Amino acid sequence: MPATRLDGKKIAAEIRSEVAADVESFVAAGNAPPQLAAILVGDDPASQVYVRNKERACEKAGIASRLDRLPASTTQAELLAKVAELNADPAASGILVQLPLPSPEAGGTGIDERAVLDAIDPIKDVDAFSPVNVGLLMQGRPRFLPCTPHGIVQLLSRTNISTSGKHVVVVGRSDIVGKPMAMMLAQKDSTCGPETANATVTLAHSRTQDLAEVCRSADILIAAVGRPEMIRGEMIREGAVVIDVGINRVDDRLVGDVAFAEAENVASAITPVPGGVGPLTIAMLLHNTLMAAKMQAAGN
Amino acid sequence: MPATRLDGKKIAAEIRSEVAADVESFVAAGNAPPQLAAILVGDDPASQVYVRNKERACEKAGIASRLDRLPASTTQAELLAKVAELNADPAASGILVQLPLPSPEAGGTGIDERAVLDAIDPIKDVDAFSPVNVGLLMQGRPRFLPCTPHGIVQLLSRTNISTSGKHVVVVGRSDIVGKPMAMMLAQKDSTCGPETANATVTLAHSRTQDLAEVCRSADILIAAVGRPEMIRGEMIREGAVVIDVGINRVDDRLVGDVAFAEAENVASAITPVPGGVGPLTIAMLLHNTLMAAKMQAAGN
Repeated sequence: MPATRLDGKKIAAEIRSEVAADVESFVAAGNAPPQLAAILVGDDPASQVYVRNKERACEKAGIASRLDRLPASTTQAELLAKVAELNADPAASGILVQLPLPSPEAGGTGIDERAVLDAIDPIKDVDAFSPVNVGLLMQGRPRFLPCTPHGIVQLLSRTNISTSGKHVVVVGRSDIVGKPMAMMLAQKDSTCGPETANATVTLAHSRTQDLAEVCRSADILIAAVGRPEMIRGEMIREGAVVIDVGINRVDDRLVGDVAFAEAENVASAITPVPGGVGPLTIAMLLHNTLMAAKMQAAGN
Repeated sequence: MPATRLDGKKIAAEIRSEVAADVESFVAAGNAPPQLAAILVGDDPASQVYVRNKERACEKAGIASRLDRLPASTTQAELLAKVAELNADPAASGILVQLPLPSPEAGGTGIDERAVLDAIDPIKDVDAFSPVNVGLLMQGRPRFLPCTPHGIVQLLSRTNISTSGKHVVVVGRSDIVGKPMAMMLAQKDSTCGPETANATVTLAHSRTQDLAEVCRSADILIAAVGRPEMIRGEMIREGAVVIDVGINRVDDRLVGDVAFAEAENVASAITPVPGGVGPLTIAMLLHNTLMAAKMQAAGN
């Protein structure tokens, strides 16, 4: 029996309509609508698409959006000045710097990405990239949850897949997905409820010896490596849940980090690519933007 | 053949003399000696011993120490005022609030420990407990390394035990040891060199199913649970390295989290209790105090 497909698109739509309803009450209570302020440097086509998708998603949820387009030739000082402007602007609830910043080959000026992200006011840091927000997360008292791992937690919890006591293997140790994902699922409690906490978590990566064996020990396998179809069917335990975070463009189609056709014959449940984790990331960004607006309205 | 005993006491002495030499050059260059400022609330006997040990260790390393003793009846506002005073005092390089704060049964006023730790200036946070320092650690760009996990990294590296590519199982998910230990060993690089990074790390804990099996999969097993002798010989893989962080008082003796007599017949190397990890924690605190003084002298 092929694995159940975990429909991230449908769950994302649920979450987005919940956020929309919540935004409506927030505004009805006399608050200004939340606003997501995005900064796009240069004209990378993929980034343009992402930013446009975010704008549309905001609009549907009743969240205002602002886009500052800066030329690829923007210097670090200029970009930091823009961030400072948005930090000081009470209308901007959340600030997002679209990554990657342009490389020197694309006309970029060699901006230190980390320095720019670090300059975002932590209370407007809806991507949860700033060190204080990362630290609060690791200590089990998150302010914002990072969007992709949070989307995965929502996906698991809304499809009644408990992580408690399970062995979760996270493949990939990025700051955006792998590391925070591991920390969130290993917590004693989580803001999303005990059913998505208390996992025994293994963080595996490019240096892991015998990755296949490590993966086969997983009840829940989360692949976030960015290498097309590197997780093969034989690396998956019969009946495991497989979450594929990868979105890789190969020729003209999108493929995940998991070899889907092989995996769906072994797994009990699996996320497709596209339509799995991807749509949840934007949904959780909307959620964070509303949260930021609420915190700022409460004077936190 | 019984396991090699990893002599934490000896390695701690090495590190302490290195720190002492480094302090001497720092002072010879015209800087004021680093100072560790400790705050002790109440009169818990164990805390008094710890604070005294830290003072002595400072003295031997040429680090000044200051101890503010406050009565158990100290309120949160009073303690926060003391922290603020030390934050503002240029002589205080590092600030340490001795934990635990007195319980209501011991005459305490129910101070929120986290609020007090959060109030310490991150640049004086030599325990590395503040969220920004925790986040920087998780992002692989630590300012201070937390003392006990850092001690373990030093122990491994100075006994030529590489973690790179190995499977490390950390049992216990405390903010002080388990979580930061897992994150440090899983990093791509570490400030202590690549040989103590790049591990495949599993974070196990009280909710882990079949803990024995998880432990047996470890090349390096780190026990930090605070339960006397809960790691038995049969939970250890033949030839594994065993690091015992536990210091539990049972009747009149100190025992670790590992059943030592059983474990030393299976492991290839093991830390004793006492004389293993314990002495390293204080050594790394001295190291951090010197680092803090250097950062402050450099105006960071």
